[in-house]
Amino acid sequence: MTTPEGPGLKAQSPQRAVLLLSGGLDSYTAGAIARDEGYELYALTVRYGQRHAREIEAAHSVARDLGAVRHIVLDVNLAAFGGSSLVGEGEVSKDRTLDDGRIPATYVPARNTIFLSLALGWAEVVGADAIIVGINALDYSGYPDCRPEYVEAFERLATVATKAGVEGRPLKISAPLLHLSKADIIRRGLAFGLSYGLTHSCYDPAPSGHPCGRCDSCRLRARGFHEAGADDDALAGDGS
Amino acid sequence: MTTPEGPGLKAQSPQRAVLLLSGGLDSYTAGAIARDEGYELYALTVRYGQRHAREIEAAHSVARDLGAVRHIVLDVNLAAFGGSSLVGEGEVSKDRTLDDGRIPATYVPARNTIFLSLALGWAEVVGADAIIVGINALDYSGYPDCRPEYVEAFERLATVATKAGVEGRPLKISAPLLHLSKADIIRRGLAFGLSYGLTHSCYDPAPSGHPCGRCDSCRLRARGFHEAGADDDALAGDGS
Repeated sequence: MTTPEGPGLKAQSPQRAVLLLSGGLDSYTAGAIARDEGYELYALTVRYGQRHAREIEAAHSVARDLGAVRHIVLDVNLAAFGGSSLVGEGEVSKDRTLDDGRIPATYVPARNTIFLSLALGWAEVVGADAIIVGINALDYSGYPDCRPEYVEAFERLATVATKAGVEGRPLKISAPLLHLSKADIIRRGLAFGLSYGLTHSCYDPAPSGHPCGRCDSCRLRARGFHEAGADDDALAGDGS
Repeated sequence: MTTPEGPGLKAQSPQRAVLLLSGGLDSYTAGAIARDEGYELYALTVRYGQRHAREIEAAHSVARDLGAVRHIVLDVNLAAFGGSSLVGEGEVSKDRTLDDGRIPATYVPARNTIFLSLALGWAEVVGADAIIVGINALDYSGYPDCRPEYVEAFERLATVATKAGVEGRPLKISAPLLHLSKADIIRRGLAFGLSYGLTHSCYDPAPSGHPCGRCDSCRLRARGFHEAGADDDALAGDGS
């Protein structure tokens, strides 16, 4: 029997990936890399009680721009546990020394583990081959769950935790930005033609949604664009 | 300086444990074992979109009975992913052959991984030494995330994922029921004087909250009480 693809050829359905999408520039870039590798994207955003809810709007725009097949925003109120300035306890640090190797107050306990676990649940349901996560080890050296050994440990867990893994189809945990600097990430994204103006990084934006420019995330972003020799579209027209 | 405990003696603060508490009899018994070992309990219940919301009421009663320091009920709508008859997709199987080694339709993808991850977040915040989980390998042979290798893989993950683990204070994942049958679990609990009438196991209760008696969970429970030679207080007064 012949098919539109010609005799002997079988239409291959694309591989699926669950993309953890925050609305920041890292997960956007990770998603673009996965899309370029041929993955069909299922985008998952977790609204976890972060102060910067502006991220969620950005996640919607980014999911659309990436052509995600579906985008789920899931509420998980991590503020119930407390323990991080990102979910309403204490002040977000401003102007602190970057790269001091300490775990900053903005660390949300077990956040990446929780996010990856949720992605794992959805990945099982849609039969995904991979989970894509935009973590990187260089710019977040103080976070235990942004290291290569962490990604490997989660991949091992996913293999024993799932029906697919037990049956010999282990899920890949892909962290394509793991060893890239912020500047490298931005260069990769700009080469894909990404619209970084869609993204939001600030931990403590003004009520208008405007980034503070002084938290760790704003400063890592500004340093990245500076080192990449590029302008940050998210700051265009702000007059500052 | 002398203290009320006497000279040279230092009041030792109790070890803390986050207990994953479902409202069923397994997690109640696991909590009683941990309490007996001297742990101060922080009970975490996840309302994940299960049909059997009656479980949540039972979890409140059980947390109180165990003397938990705190009890958090966290909403995580796993029904958004679909894929399990426990969260509203398809029918709950009735009267099916138990112990057939297949993964039943009531399996919620990655549920234990998601629950343990959430417990990990709270454990980091309260400085817990352990997470207590009532999973057991015998009665749930079809579930990949109820096996010893799964518990070990999560414990390895927790060590690399957390500040405490990185600093040499790894968290213990304690699954005291892992190798016990339902009858053994019930015998342990009755020896502690537990009030199993507080608990709820049915996957598909009547609107009144009354157990159906025919789902896997009801039948495992009934078989367990029968083998333990004990009456199930949860069925007392139902006239059946």
